[in-house]
Amino acid sequence: MYLASDNTGPIHPQIMEALAEANQGYALPYGNDPYTARAITAIRELFEAPQAEIFFVPTGTSGNALALSTLCQPYESVLCTAAAHIHEDECGAPEFYGVGKTYLVGEGDLMDPDALGALITDLNEGGVHSAQPGAVSITSVTERGQLYELDRIESLATIAHAAGLPLHLDGARFANACAALEVSAAEMTWQSGVDVVTFGGTKAGCMGVEAVIFFNPDRARGFAARRKRAGHLFSKNRFLAAQMLGFVRNDLWLQLGAAANARGQYLAEALCMDARIQWPYAPRANMLFPKLPRSVLQGLGAAGVAFNHWGNRDHGAPDEMLLTRFVCDWSVPYEELDKFLAVLKAS
Amino acid sequence: MYLASDNTGPIHPQIMEALAEANQGYALPYGNDPYTARAITAIRELFEAPQAEIFFVPTGTSGNALALSTLCQPYESVLCTAAAHIHEDECGAPEFYGVGKTYLVGEGDLMDPDALGALITDLNEGGVHSAQPGAVSITSVTERGQLYELDRIESLATIAHAAGLPLHLDGARFANACAALEVSAAEMTWQSGVDVVTFGGTKAGCMGVEAVIFFNPDRARGFAARRKRAGHLFSKNRFLAAQMLGFVRNDLWLQLGAAANARGQYLAEALCMDARIQWPYAPRANMLFPKLPRSVLQGLGAAGVAFNHWGNRDHGAPDEMLLTRFVCDWSVPYEELDKFLAVLKAS
Amino acid sequence: MYLASDNTGPIHPQIMEALAEANQGYALPYGNDPYTARAITAIRELFEAPQAEIFFVPTGTSGNALALSTLCQPYESVLCTAAAHIHEDECGAPEFYGVGKTYLVGEGDLMDPDALGALITDLNEGGVHSAQPGAVSITSVTERGQLYELDRIESLATIAHAAGLPLHLDGARFANACAALEVSAAEMTWQSGVDVVTFGGTKAGCMGVEAVIFFNPDRARGFAARRKRAGHLFSKNRFLAAQMLGFVRNDLWLQLGAAANARGQYLAEALCMDARIQWPYAPRANMLFPKLPRSVLQGLGAAGVAFNHWGNRDHGAPDEMLLTRFVCDWSVPYEELDKFLAVLKAS
Amino acid sequence: MYLASDNTGPIHPQIMEALAEANQGYALPYGNDPYTARAITAIRELFEAPQAEIFFVPTGTSGNALALSTLCQPYESVLCTAAAHIHEDECGAPEFYGVGKTYLVGEGDLMDPDALGALITDLNEGGVHSAQPGAVSITSVTERGQLYELDRIESLATIAHAAGLPLHLDGARFANACAALEVSAAEMTWQSGVDVVTFGGTKAGCMGVEAVIFFNPDRARGFAARRKRAGHLFSKNRFLAAQMLGFVRNDLWLQLGAAANARGQYLAEALCMDARIQWPYAPRANMLFPKLPRSVLQGLGAAGVAFNHWGNRDHGAPDEMLLTRFVCDWSVPYEELDKFLAVLKAS
Repeated sequence: MYLASDNTGPIHPQIMEALAEANQGYALPYGNDPYTARAITAIRELFEAPQAEIFFVPTGTSGNALALSTLCQPYESVLCTAAAHIHEDECGAPEFYGVGKTYLVGEGDLMDPDALGALITDLNEGGVHSAQPGAVSITSVTERGQLYELDRIESLATIAHAAGLPLHLDGARFANACAALEVSAAEMTWQSGVDVVTFGGTKAGCMGVEAVIFFNPDRARGFAARRKRAGHLFSKNRFLAAQMLGFVRNDLWLQLGAAANARGQYLAEALCMDARIQWPYAPRANMLFPKLPRSVLQGLGAAGVAFNHWGNRDHGAPDEMLLTRFVCDWSVPYEELDKFLAVLKAS
Repeated sequence: MYLASDNTGPIHPQIMEALAEANQGYALPYGNDPYTARAITAIRELFEAPQAEIFFVPTGTSGNALALSTLCQPYESVLCTAAAHIHEDECGAPEFYGVGKTYLVGEGDLMDPDALGALITDLNEGGVHSAQPGAVSITSVTERGQLYELDRIESLATIAHAAGLPLHLDGARFANACAALEVSAAEMTWQSGVDVVTFGGTKAGCMGVEAVIFFNPDRARGFAARRKRAGHLFSKNRFLAAQMLGFVRNDLWLQLGAAANARGQYLAEALCMDARIQWPYAPRANMLFPKLPRSVLQGLGAAGVAFNHWGNRDHGAPDEMLLTRFVCDWSVPYEELDKFLAVLKAS
Repeated sequence: MYLASDNTGPIHPQIMEALAEANQGYALPYGNDPYTARAITAIRELFEAPQAEIFFVPTGTSGNALALSTLCQPYESVLCTAAAHIHEDECGAPEFYGVGKTYLVGEGDLMDPDALGALITDLNEGGVHSAQPGAVSITSVTERGQLYELDRIESLATIAHAAGLPLHLDGARFANACAALEVSAAEMTWQSGVDVVTFGGTKAGCMGVEAVIFFNPDRARGFAARRKRAGHLFSKNRFLAAQMLGFVRNDLWLQLGAAANARGQYLAEALCMDARIQWPYAPRANMLFPKLPRSVLQGLGAAGVAFNHWGNRDHGAPDEMLLTRFVCDWSVPYEELDKFLAVLKAS
Repeated sequence: MYLASDNTGPIHPQIMEALAEANQGYALPYGNDPYTARAITAIRELFEAPQAEIFFVPTGTSGNALALSTLCQPYESVLCTAAAHIHEDECGAPEFYGVGKTYLVGEGDLMDPDALGALITDLNEGGVHSAQPGAVSITSVTERGQLYELDRIESLATIAHAAGLPLHLDGARFANACAALEVSAAEMTWQSGVDVVTFGGTKAGCMGVEAVIFFNPDRARGFAARRKRAGHLFSKNRFLAAQMLGFVRNDLWLQLGAAANARGQYLAEALCMDARIQWPYAPRANMLFPKLPRSVLQGLGAAGVAFNHWGNRDHGAPDEMLLTRFVCDWSVPYEELDKFLAVLKAS
């Protein structure tokens, strides 16, 4: 039972077909092929953004770090939350790619507009001694399974823009967020003030592809060269493009996001009946962050369930509540979820 | 007619099948899957190197730059030739990844052992003012289509090792080199003194995968973390591994190298009959570097042949000889080559 | 009235004399001069560390960043407090110099050993996804005027060493700390478990010099090359060395630290009588961090007093308490402090 | 006898006096002091450039690397000669500071305008695969003792500007160059097309200071933050400024350049009488680059003369000619030069 992540499942058949379709004959390398051109057009249509500059990269980390280093000078900082993937889970990728520093906004999971404003003011007062803000980055679905409502994105964008800062959205689970909020790709991004989004395909059912989308093409200056020197420009770029073509065709992306969310909600509803469980974060999409007693986690582990948790599972009081993560991808069968629930009950 | 590169052709069917085979059920992410383990085992067998540390990355640039930054301190330099891909064609990737500098050994295409020794001595005399040598890097098939005979590799390795430097082999066309010299993967590498090789799959018929192989596992320290923070650790790593599994199964890699070389030799033999052509570099594998009169190149261009050349094709004396590159991949049909030869004759 | 920093006052005459003494005849450049050799010997004696490797640099930021980048791999992190100068006030210098990231230990000013242990455990669990810890860095006198008692340093060192991490001490105000605690340079550092110290001269009365001291010379590997490529190797290094020679001669360094502390304590005693003032941080050396009402700060500003504060001085409720910093250097006359106290009383 | 460099001699008394003058009372740190303001004004007058942005740094390496990284994007290259100090003698400082790469223009010492144009064309053709040119850097007095005539600077500037590239002048020996050519600071720089100059004080008689001058202030964006995060912003900046004030007062800088040149010419005239000596580079300022037989160099070494040479002095045929460098600073007594000439005669 794989509930550890949404990257453990198979590639969706429609993506595999798109790869096979693209494997015909000869095509110019490094993105000068017709598949790349077509995929860019398709994404522009999806986002209702005919001027957008769009680049394909194979991983979320590369997409985020390339985007942020393009937005920032090397003596500037990215402002994000403490749980942000770019801060916690990318081994310092933004700093490696040339961002000066990451500074953290408050302590919560969802970024608070007031806390953002206060941090910007503080850093501005630091002058040359602080790494001045260069960009703001948020994630939705967040790293704790939360969602940014559109008005919160707008508030953050307003504050960022007033300080001359672009707003970046880490959209590793963009499909889940749009499906859960029932908003369009355009509403989620540029219509709410997002300047750059990393539109994730990998976790949603692709093999490995993300699209970095700059709604204002002027902001994209240098991205292509940075991608090349980081080794993320694929010679056979048509196979990144093909995945994206398969992903957006007939709104597959949105169906996959909804499918994953439905599984997450199915699980959440069942778990909510379990009195041993606490909910520091309300379950909203395909990732659940309940707290469970250590003894229960030990039982799940013994039964072979793969999942993540924070704190030492093996030592400590049996009734200590530990933060846990269960993630559903688009493909996980409901029978598997039922089996898991049975195991949980018995743990 | 695509003779510009060996990355314009299709993926070999056996690779596509391997991808489909790997797309079954659930697998742990980030390389903790059985496909990755199996591919590592298969490559260790191929290279007769049971202790080797092996990592998969999607591009040659990432493989080279990650390998070299792992071998060097950031205040050290990599020694290579002027035509080296890492110096000329990777937009500064080694420096970005943390290599201090690249210094060039002599002027030729194949690295000369005496010139290497002389440069090391010069740099050592520079003390702290020079970026001290940290590694030596060569490419075979070289960027001008040449081959390093094994005894030359041994000579270079002897000099490098005497100075405490590891020898890196950029093997973007490793299959072509082994096929042309009729040597094994082990003979080409550790048996000749190579410490680290970037074993290329992409140009030889894969979708996008290279294996970085450290024959001494101690040298690999830090590679995994560097790969992660550069965004080159695939969450769905099984699909990089699957390509490699398909690539080495039944020596497909060597067949593909030989197939490309055969096409290159077919073309070379025909071109050698053409009195208008000069050969500054003898054609040895799948890349030809003849010189042709500008007027001929203009004719080829007008006929829609895709190829590379050095110097301005459009302006200058019609009979000025310009360096040209024709590359054959494993898949290009001989009829296409005949068509090209006909076009050339008529140009 | 300059209470904003301890870098606004004059250079001590004994340092100026040492510069004049060194300005005799010819000397080899880049540290190969007799003054550098003598200064290194003198500092080894002061720290009772005959094997220590010692390097001179012109600024605290360069000393800290060069030390930390020498201790860490580029994919590793430095663990420090939220108020650490290396995190807050060096515009991202550690990251620029090659440290992967800074991660923050808890929220307080003095680093808590338990919080350090917990963070190390958390990061270790992150595996390749987190920038693994590479070094721990503390500052004494801290950035909020506090002192690390020796037993706390020992506790931190024990935890760091158990995890294989070296402990770095940012000693920009090392003289003040030793004078306040009445401990020797050796007790403050290697005898308590400190592995590397940036021994500050600038704030204590020099023109611009810090000594980076590695008690285990093996840890210093690469420092010299890093210093050169950062442009911090002085061709006329004898003038950095001369400052240090003047600084340690006859324990001038300790006298200057004590002189600054005495002024700080004089000020603190007077301020403690003022009922409008709160003390979130007990005053222990030459930096005071009281909280004062906004209205009082406005009065001080209007009277031309130079000082630092956190929060907006000009807008908000007159009685809101704002964190303020007053710093005394070794030279500030007591009459100036009395004048300041009079201004404060009237504000 | 120190002929190895112009950084082995004493600081000129007028500079020492300026340091003493600046050591009065209190001054705001980090360049917000009146000495810094005055020094900037004085340099603007000297260069007849009232709009210029001017920054002080302690070393030539920091000045060059900070200037070039401000001019270039991190995926761009600096074009320079093979002997350029930034390429050969700064341990990779430009790359460390964020320049993507250095590419070399031709093989000579003085940069050839045609070779510059050809390299720019070549790199432009490389597209994203080459690190595109970001700046051109020349040195005068060159690293082989040559001078750029003003019309050559103009030719290089014309080509650089046509390609959108700024021209940087490494002026470590700017005073010697102006004195030798009898041109003004303005003629040598912006009037000839130089966009940024590192105006060297250290080798000309200061303790350690260089002024980085941007004639177009728009180009200076980010320099201040880069200087801070590199640890080159002095808290007691008034002592960098004071050196520059003493240096430009009453044209001391030019007198010191002329004094060093006069000694160089005195030496050159005597050496020209020695039939054992060859002159691959005509002596024009204070650095001589003759070739001498190995046996003579061995004699000089045995007599304790400090000088630089290229090639192994200790092994090889006694009559092999080795390139040698003799440098005179402003202070070296003529009697010392006579003593050296006597030693040479006897060698």
